[in-house]
Amino acid sequence: MLQAVLQTIDSRRDQAVSALKEFLSIPSVSAQPSHAADMQRCAQWLVDQLSFAALDVKIMPVAGGNGHPAVVAKNKHIPGRPTVLYYGHYDVQPPEPLELWTTPPFQPTVRDSAIYARGAADDKGQVWAHVEAIMAWQAHGGLPVNLTVLIEGEEEVGSENLREFVAQHREALKADIAVISDTVLFARGIPAITYSLRGLVYMELTITAAAVDLHSGLYGGAVPNPLNILCELLATLHDRDGRVNLPGFYDKVMPPSTEERRLWAKLPFDEKQYAADLKLPGLAGEVGYSALERLWTRPTCDINGITGGYQGPGAKTVIASKASAKVSMRLVPNQDSVAVRDSFIAAMRERCPKCVKLDLECHGQTPAVLVSQHSRGIELASEAIEVGYGIRPALIRGAASIPVVELIKSNLGIDTLLVGFGLPDDCVHSPNEKFDLDSLHAGARTAAALYERLAKL
Amino acid sequence: MLQAVLQTIDSRRDQAVSALKEFLSIPSVSAQPSHAADMQRCAQWLVDQLSFAALDVKIMPVAGGNGHPAVVAKNKHIPGRPTVLYYGHYDVQPPEPLELWTTPPFQPTVRDSAIYARGAADDKGQVWAHVEAIMAWQAHGGLPVNLTVLIEGEEEVGSENLREFVAQHREALKADIAVISDTVLFARGIPAITYSLRGLVYMELTITAAAVDLHSGLYGGAVPNPLNILCELLATLHDRDGRVNLPGFYDKVMPPSTEERRLWAKLPFDEKQYAADLKLPGLAGEVGYSALERLWTRPTCDINGITGGYQGPGAKTVIASKASAKVSMRLVPNQDSVAVRDSFIAAMRERCPKCVKLDLECHGQTPAVLVSQHSRGIELASEAIEVGYGIRPALIRGAASIPVVELIKSNLGIDTLLVGFGLPDDCVHSPNEKFDLDSLHAGARTAAALYERLAKL
Repeated sequence: MLQAVLQTIDSRRDQAVSALKEFLSIPSVSAQPSHAADMQRCAQWLVDQLSFAALDVKIMPVAGGNGHPAVVAKNKHIPGRPTVLYYGHYDVQPPEPLELWTTPPFQPTVRDSAIYARGAADDKGQVWAHVEAIMAWQAHGGLPVNLTVLIEGEEEVGSENLREFVAQHREALKADIAVISDTVLFARGIPAITYSLRGLVYMELTITAAAVDLHSGLYGGAVPNPLNILCELLATLHDRDGRVNLPGFYDKVMPPSTEERRLWAKLPFDEKQYAADLKLPGLAGEVGYSALERLWTRPTCDINGITGGYQGPGAKTVIASKASAKVSMRLVPNQDSVAVRDSFIAAMRERCPKCVKLDLECHGQTPAVLVSQHSRGIELASEAIEVGYGIRPALIRGAASIPVVELIKSNLGIDTLLVGFGLPDDCVHSPNEKFDLDSLHAGARTAAALYERLAKL
Repeated sequence: MLQAVLQTIDSRRDQAVSALKEFLSIPSVSAQPSHAADMQRCAQWLVDQLSFAALDVKIMPVAGGNGHPAVVAKNKHIPGRPTVLYYGHYDVQPPEPLELWTTPPFQPTVRDSAIYARGAADDKGQVWAHVEAIMAWQAHGGLPVNLTVLIEGEEEVGSENLREFVAQHREALKADIAVISDTVLFARGIPAITYSLRGLVYMELTITAAAVDLHSGLYGGAVPNPLNILCELLATLHDRDGRVNLPGFYDKVMPPSTEERRLWAKLPFDEKQYAADLKLPGLAGEVGYSALERLWTRPTCDINGITGGYQGPGAKTVIASKASAKVSMRLVPNQDSVAVRDSFIAAMRERCPKCVKLDLECHGQTPAVLVSQHSRGIELASEAIEVGYGIRPALIRGAASIPVVELIKSNLGIDTLLVGFGLPDDCVHSPNEKFDLDSLHAGARTAAALYERLAKL
């Protein structure tokens, strides 16, 4: 039966691209309130598509914050079969800066065998690969597993409201395993299953000194300068070896296993080429680790934004009243995200001089994820990838965070298979995001095979 | 004759305020190209006013950069009389942040016996005090000295082009002494003559890492983060005792004299009250010095602005491509401003890691100024202040920089009398800048008396 399903997918190659173009042309930017109506339109468009596949589909409200709805769909669940929860998201990152796009971000354009648009790889293209697989199975007598589809609209703003939503609908979302396609191949031609993700703690610091901006000539030397202090404070976050300088930060960090090191050593990764592709004079990071080890096994602390004082052209002799920075830490398996957050707060409070006021705010925290590389699910997913790509996948870790994986684990008690169809050069979150037409096709074939294999879970 | 002049000034109190309002309503922001036409309009407005006083007035182009013109005016110079060069500036600081102004910065508003507007004290109000004195003298048979008025339009952007202008017009600007009113009283009720000013070196640093912004999850830990590096670099600028950490920085710093220390000890200065007025939890600065010593005799290094990465609400997980900061150093007598600039550049280049690109730009440099406290000019100015304020002035140093003082000294070979009418709480360079109506009046009376006294130079 899988062969017939795959043939259907093969024959719909052009239709799949046309459908994805429709999906991508809806500017479903969750972060921007001006796109609230587009979010609703995008959810409704998905409902229509999934209805064609004879699924039972609903738009379900998600309480809190932006309140962008989720789309939930099910085939007819038959007792005794494994249940799979497929998760994706229909919202996209803001497309700015617009002037860097070759073609407009919401006018999907095919060139050089790829489709260019915001959301092409993250995550609409990958969602559509699954929809193609689902439709093909439904056209051939129905999916071989019980499937619950959950496509949310707030992933790009942190999935914060989804936690409550999943907790409330625990019974309806109950499954044996979850599947997410929102990650990348290791490289073109090297498909991968990601079995670990880094966690995240995102903090904002604001330092306030005098009530108003002061003339740096008239006051300089006698009053605290919040920009000087902020830089000094942030500079304490790393030691000379590029290690994060917070009490207890590395206490629970789990080193990679010997087996992992052995497997990674076989992966082609050229650090010089990596730097050259980013137009970097050189790489950087914690002393004693390769770039891959830094990305996959070591926690980080990065300033994501900083602002204060005069930022216009030329000179202004001012001592700012306020300065602030956004700082995020990527966490690795076994680090306690709550403990890291608290350690950061305590250290900053202790290190900040008392002549200024320090305010700290947490914009979210989620621990890292690590699942076994030897599970039945990973074996079945590997077989499916071999069907889709004609080659066994590498088992890799991921450097980014997908908070919903931890959320699914803690609320539904199940692991997630991270089977991504993106490529490292897809420019997710950047201008000229793309998704290769080959990625869409191989992804759809992989998803079709995955639903067949997971029937044997 | 001075009594008649002072009576005219007294009788014009309201008219003086009306005229100053007109002056202040012109948004002559030299730093912002969008105000280029306003700069021209402001210069022309001044020409019109000075023409009423039967002076010979010209708008003179200033070559270079922004090219905002200078206004030059003269009475009829009579051989044998001392010649006074009065310098002021008609340009103002940018008014931002606008939301902190009680009334709009270019809608001058009188409340609580003060006029609120950008430039009220710095320097339009003080310029207008001189214009009132000049007009009153001209209405009573003419000024008792040969006067050359030079009002420039680029003080707030560093007076860089004025150097060439003064050098070119050395003969026309030739004088026996210069007068500037762009400083403050020591405190309300304690007028002052400033005999020293700090110098300035103003630098901008820009760090560039990858060619585009990167996802901090996908890349964090393996690529240099220009914000992390910028903060670490800027944090090296001070040691633990608040001393500036640049090679040779303190080598030539001249300590204050015993006499100065003795006189300053008599000045009322309450550090706790000073901090409380600024709503600061505490003061800060170089260990081992009082606040006044820090302001008047010690060099500084202050970050005036910093920017990079995501600065909007909430969280964005980005590693910026670029980060930049503006940093200025205030210098004290005998420090070599060129050597300090070069030391800063060399140290930053040496301390910056090679995995990023560092660009450095100098937005201007000027050495500190120190003149004798025992000159004939200072004695005559003290008498004039006694006429204007009813009390002898204190002799103080200033914390700010007025590059034109050094420029006048080196090009025209004369000292400058710094007789300021501002108050320390005038909020220059800050929102809600003001100038007391009493300051305007006492300033005009002082200027009138000063022109009379300087006839005896």
